[in-house]
Amino acid sequence: MYALIGTWKMSLKGISEGGQLLKEGSPAGDAVACAVMDVEANPAFVSVGYGGLPALDGQVYLDAGYMDGNTLTCGAVLSVTGIASSFAAARGLCGRKTNWMLTGEAARKFALSLGVKECDLRTKESMARYEEAMRTFNPGDPLTAYRGHDTVCVLGLDETGRMVSGTSTSGLFLKEPGRVGDSPIPGCGYYCDSRYGAAAATGLGEDIMRGCLSHECVRLMRQGMTAQQAAEEALRDLVEKKLSIGEDKGSMSLITLAPDGSFGAATTEACFPFAVATPDGPCLYTCVPGEKGMEIRAADPDSVPD
Amino acid sequence: MYALIGTWKMSLKGISEGGQLLKEGSPAGDAVACAVMDVEANPAFVSVGYGGLPALDGQVYLDAGYMDGNTLTCGAVLSVTGIASSFAAARGLCGRKTNWMLTGEAARKFALSLGVKECDLRTKESMARYEEAMRTFNPGDPLTAYRGHDTVCVLGLDETGRMVSGTSTSGLFLKEPGRVGDSPIPGCGYYCDSRYGAAAATGLGEDIMRGCLSHECVRLMRQGMTAQQAAEEALRDLVEKKLSIGEDKGSMSLITLAPDGSFGAATTEACFPFAVATPDGPCLYTCVPGEKGMEIRAADPDSVPD
Repeated sequence: MYALIGTWKMSLKGISEGGQLLKEGSPAGDAVACAVMDVEANPAFVSVGYGGLPALDGQVYLDAGYMDGNTLTCGAVLSVTGIASSFAAARGLCGRKTNWMLTGEAARKFALSLGVKECDLRTKESMARYEEAMRTFNPGDPLTAYRGHDTVCVLGLDETGRMVSGTSTSGLFLKEPGRVGDSPIPGCGYYCDSRYGAAAATGLGEDIMRGCLSHECVRLMRQGMTAQQAAEEALRDLVEKKLSIGEDKGSMSLITLAPDGSFGAATTEACFPFAVATPDGPCLYTCVPGEKGMEIRAADPDSVPD
Repeated sequence: MYALIGTWKMSLKGISEGGQLLKEGSPAGDAVACAVMDVEANPAFVSVGYGGLPALDGQVYLDAGYMDGNTLTCGAVLSVTGIASSFAAARGLCGRKTNWMLTGEAARKFALSLGVKECDLRTKESMARYEEAMRTFNPGDPLTAYRGHDTVCVLGLDETGRMVSGTSTSGLFLKEPGRVGDSPIPGCGYYCDSRYGAAAATGLGEDIMRGCLSHECVRLMRQGMTAQQAAEEALRDLVEKKLSIGEDKGSMSLITLAPDGSFGAATTEACFPFAVATPDGPCLYTCVPGEKGMEIRAADPDSVPD
């Protein structure tokens, strides 16, 4: 069995290509890299990598994380700018015994030493959106998660049973320079343990971290829940806590993958699309909150907005 | 009931003073702040705050985290330099809906805006140790956790039932500038939920993060374990995994606190001292791995090295 699952419709192309790699026997890490880096390189996706929307100072700062579920080893870069792939840097750090979580300039230097290309992440389109937003932005205005897309998170399972998690994001539009979200943080934006499962989160990182949602999902799978049950229960539990103290339910979505290749998703959004590749081929799904839990349905990509 | 628990003998003075605050009815956050900031300000403690041992470039970079267990809100600063208290900055960020995890210069600016004092964290003694170490250090030399002291982590429970976790560290001696460990990371270096318990970790952050040990401890308390059982089980599980893949057991210690004021500790060290203040007064304890689990004993401070 093999499986690859990625957040949002934007991951469908990379998930299809990564699924092909898994079919040909590639390791999960390579398939996850293929899927994440396809999104990073595409300027049409304004929440990740090249073309990502800027921070308050007009610069683009990237976060990325990577975890190998066989060894529980990780790599992560935080608030790094000027490189084409933050994911490649995070993956390159995985396996170090120390110094595997690097911020800012240290992360950039490491990426360049690895051969990751220097890159001005700003595009004409992203800067136009930045300048328009800054015309009306006031310090203290609330920041909100993107709609319809956000962090690219990919979970992979290969034929050897190895599970891998990867994430990449440019973070909240108009965040403070130096702000870090959940995406590079193990346990929050991603987690995996090949014995029990893999999970990743997208949405408002500041809320996701409060519940350590990815670790919580893997914990619940370890206790016997299915991937779908774990995603729903982890999200339900944090939302219930938020509502109990007068907050709104927030903007959070989760994907999960079990060692048998079965998967799950949960969301507080009206509709959360995600892409899956298995031996049955690639497929786009939507996750929609229903009365009896999340409704997961195969979807025609043409009917799902980007 | 109230309780305050802090890592290492170095926390004893601040834990005693913070315990007095709790006795007088202060909130847990103030008691935790008192205990953490006492260690930060003392240059004799070379792993935290002023006098902390430098990174490879001779500069001191601080990490700190804070979590309120009633609201699951957090604040964190990563790789910040030039301020007297990274903990004060982390606590000051707690309560923000976004931008509550800040790195480097953004964290420093926020701290100064809060009134935290600018501070050259280097002392004659720390720079002498740095220069001596650099004479023989080669790139690629393994970095190891401190012996006998490390991150200051403090867990507090006040009479209203509120639980709070706080951490502060200058990180690994000779780390890469920009390296971040577990201390500012929710779920890894600290976690708390007033309904279930609080936990924090000290030792090699890169290993602690692989198991999300603080979240794992709180999870296990939620499932019904005592504070002591949770600390032992979380540590045992990660150590077993590390040994199974040919690694050593590592250098990690945990403290836990339950909503009823009972506490726990676990360590891979030969001896892990920690300080506790309850209505019975302040007391230093040692945690020593024994044949049937951890042995926790009250200790004479004069017999425990710093």
